[in-house]
Amino acid sequence: MYYSTNSPDTIVALATASGKGAIAVVRLSGPEAINITNKIFHGKNLDQQASHTLHFGSIRDNGRVLDEVVVSLFKAPHSYTKENVVEISCHGSDYIVEQIIRLTLQHGARLAQAGEFTKRAFLNGQLDLAQAEAVADLIASDSRLSHEVAMKQMRGGFSQEIKNLRAQLIHFASMIELELDFSEEDVEFADRTALQNLIFNIQKLIRDLLKSFEFGNVIKHGVPVVIVGKPNAGKSTLLNVLLNEEKAIVSDVAGTTRDFIEDEISIEGISFRFIDTAGLRETTDKVEAIGVKRTLQKVEEASLVIYLFDIATTTPEELTQEIEALALDENTPIIAVANKIDTVSSSNLETYRQIADTIAISASEKAGIETLKQKLLEKVRGNQLDTSDQTIVTNLRHYENLQQTYTALDDVLTGISSNISSDFLAADIRRALYALGQITGEITTDDLLDNIFSKFCIGK
Amino acid sequence: MYYSTNSPDTIVALATASGKGAIAVVRLSGPEAINITNKIFHGKNLDQQASHTLHFGSIRDNGRVLDEVVVSLFKAPHSYTKENVVEISCHGSDYIVEQIIRLTLQHGARLAQAGEFTKRAFLNGQLDLAQAEAVADLIASDSRLSHEVAMKQMRGGFSQEIKNLRAQLIHFASMIELELDFSEEDVEFADRTALQNLIFNIQKLIRDLLKSFEFGNVIKHGVPVVIVGKPNAGKSTLLNVLLNEEKAIVSDVAGTTRDFIEDEISIEGISFRFIDTAGLRETTDKVEAIGVKRTLQKVEEASLVIYLFDIATTTPEELTQEIEALALDENTPIIAVANKIDTVSSSNLETYRQIADTIAISASEKAGIETLKQKLLEKVRGNQLDTSDQTIVTNLRHYENLQQTYTALDDVLTGISSNISSDFLAADIRRALYALGQITGEITTDDLLDNIFSKFCIGK
Repeated sequence: MYYSTNSPDTIVALATASGKGAIAVVRLSGPEAINITNKIFHGKNLDQQASHTLHFGSIRDNGRVLDEVVVSLFKAPHSYTKENVVEISCHGSDYIVEQIIRLTLQHGARLAQAGEFTKRAFLNGQLDLAQAEAVADLIASDSRLSHEVAMKQMRGGFSQEIKNLRAQLIHFASMIELELDFSEEDVEFADRTALQNLIFNIQKLIRDLLKSFEFGNVIKHGVPVVIVGKPNAGKSTLLNVLLNEEKAIVSDVAGTTRDFIEDEISIEGISFRFIDTAGLRETTDKVEAIGVKRTLQKVEEASLVIYLFDIATTTPEELTQEIEALALDENTPIIAVANKIDTVSSSNLETYRQIADTIAISASEKAGIETLKQKLLEKVRGNQLDTSDQTIVTNLRHYENLQQTYTALDDVLTGISSNISSDFLAADIRRALYALGQITGEITTDDLLDNIFSKFCIGK
Repeated sequence: MYYSTNSPDTIVALATASGKGAIAVVRLSGPEAINITNKIFHGKNLDQQASHTLHFGSIRDNGRVLDEVVVSLFKAPHSYTKENVVEISCHGSDYIVEQIIRLTLQHGARLAQAGEFTKRAFLNGQLDLAQAEAVADLIASDSRLSHEVAMKQMRGGFSQEIKNLRAQLIHFASMIELELDFSEEDVEFADRTALQNLIFNIQKLIRDLLKSFEFGNVIKHGVPVVIVGKPNAGKSTLLNVLLNEEKAIVSDVAGTTRDFIEDEISIEGISFRFIDTAGLRETTDKVEAIGVKRTLQKVEEASLVIYLFDIATTTPEELTQEIEALALDENTPIIAVANKIDTVSSSNLETYRQIADTIAISASEKAGIETLKQKLLEKVRGNQLDTSDQTIVTNLRHYENLQQTYTALDDVLTGISSNISSDFLAADIRRALYALGQITGEITTDDLLDNIFSKFCIGK
């Protein structure tokens, strides 16, 4: 069920990033978009122009030329919002953009709210809700995989998956409802075992989607990796090598790094967010002591820990103790990285490897860095299969709706095995359908929409 | 003389401001702009589409969908550069923009240099040089007047003025050259007195333009206004009231403001850049002492000084001494502002007015602020007449060329009065024409062009 919109308003906003650029684009959408633009545009009568055409002219304010612009016309329903849409491409000065928007307001437009263009696209059936949400993800995407997942979702791949699930549930529901129609006759049209198997299959599909969320989160938000180790183990140097630039202050005075410096690199399409930390030595310096405490907090929040040590000065016994001191959650993978491998003549890495998954590098010589990167990928991908064909859930709202669907289906199964009446089964199945329908927006509320679109930027 | 361009290259750049926005626009210009786009665009054959049309489709990289976009086609010569131009309007993510640009590079485009689109517009005769320079000014304009002057220049108002001057000089030159053709016969076709009058007239016009430069600078760069006064005179409060926001740290501890805080307000279309300063008292605090020294430096650079004093605690004698201590250049106007007028029962403002141009305000009560703003305008406008019809020079290059023209004309006048031969007159007049021709680019060099367009942003 899509809302039909009677929206009489015509909305306006800057559609491009703000700041100085060669050009900026002011976008209007609504029944009066073309009329309003026509009142301030000189050069042609836009009313008489075809959709999908470009027109050069000037924007004037009481005869004063505000800018020379190119106007793009998209006539309803052949536009992003399915309404009349005009894009005014002007010179990229904040002053000009403000003045053009002010003029359109004077002639009857109103400022668009956050996400209102995309909300209208949804309300007018151009996109479903999951696709609309993917638009924001797409704009925010900053790595190959996050872009790929958002693009797939925007183009309806994820929605199709949900619709298939929903179709199966509706088929199930229809069989149950049929029994309700004949409830006085106490017939069972639906074979209970067949029903159970259908639910099992649907739950299996939902489990796969739920499972993908963890990796989806990694793709969307990056992997927080904390680098810990004793002072002078070479943490800042390693970070610099990984980031390939001089972000951290590197010095040979122990205890240089007190603040947490974060930056991201993308390895094979996955973002890793590296967090450098203060060293872990016992210290009398108050500021540094706070640093050590915060390091341990950061370790708790990390998805992945790199324990960096100086192989020339660290015995295997010390490594054992130091890793134990981190008190890692058993689900948090750790990579022990033996640094300064270039300073020792022979190294007995095997001994260290019995303590933790260990690789040898020389941060200062930039040796072993590629191996470290592959190790990072391996730890994150874990048992994830090839993701190219898999549908991946990246949105918490979708995850929660899928969980609700799953729970409702559990209730259906319980009902079947305890042989409850068809009307109770039907209620549970409706609950599952409701939760599933919220993902793509077949079922929605004003609150839900407000909540989703308020997170968009204005102009989208 | 316009250069004809054989430029075989097709250039590409992001044309909108960088950063996240709903949409971003990647622009291509050159003979291959449409062909290159066609290779990565799916949905339609762009080759077969008319100029000034919009096309929805997707950008693909080896089958992978990079984005859904709208492509704008402008076919040569009906475009900004007079070449084929394509604008790809994509989702406003840096990642997507990078990938689209990368794809166009793979298919034969090259990255545009700073200002290269506008340079091509100039080389292909779309704009003259002064108009092209106005494009950059227009984008940078942040007040009504700076916008108005840049717009007038971009639309050719200034160029027309220069062309008129040039036409008069060419008329003059033609008369002289005619004499040269008949030089052996020693005739004078041009009446020397009429020639002198013509030069006088042209010089008068150039003088007006040169004179406008000072105000043009004010319009373009804003007026630096330094606010000085003793600690606790209320400088930061006044600045906050003027800026209407809490930029400076206001505290009642004397000597709070040590850094220079700059911000702009626009009063009737003119930007004023306010510079708050450290107080002027003798101090033993080393940091603050540096502040006082820097205050005096700032005063030297200011176009306008506000001397703020607490009327409750400052005698007219003290005011006299303090203003003298500033050692102001006689061309720098000063406004004495008597603050805290609300704390004194009766005030003898007249006594202070005999020392300096004085107005009374209460910064904390926001009283007298409008009067202060009008006073600021009055000081800046000075003897400037109404500027609405006047041509204003804002560009240092133009100013220097006008000066060169003026000097060459002086030499012509000297030549006429000392009765030198026509060929020397002709040489001087050519020098004047050369300088004038550089303004609009009738005469130009590669170095000049490089220098001008390298100051543009990439994408323009």
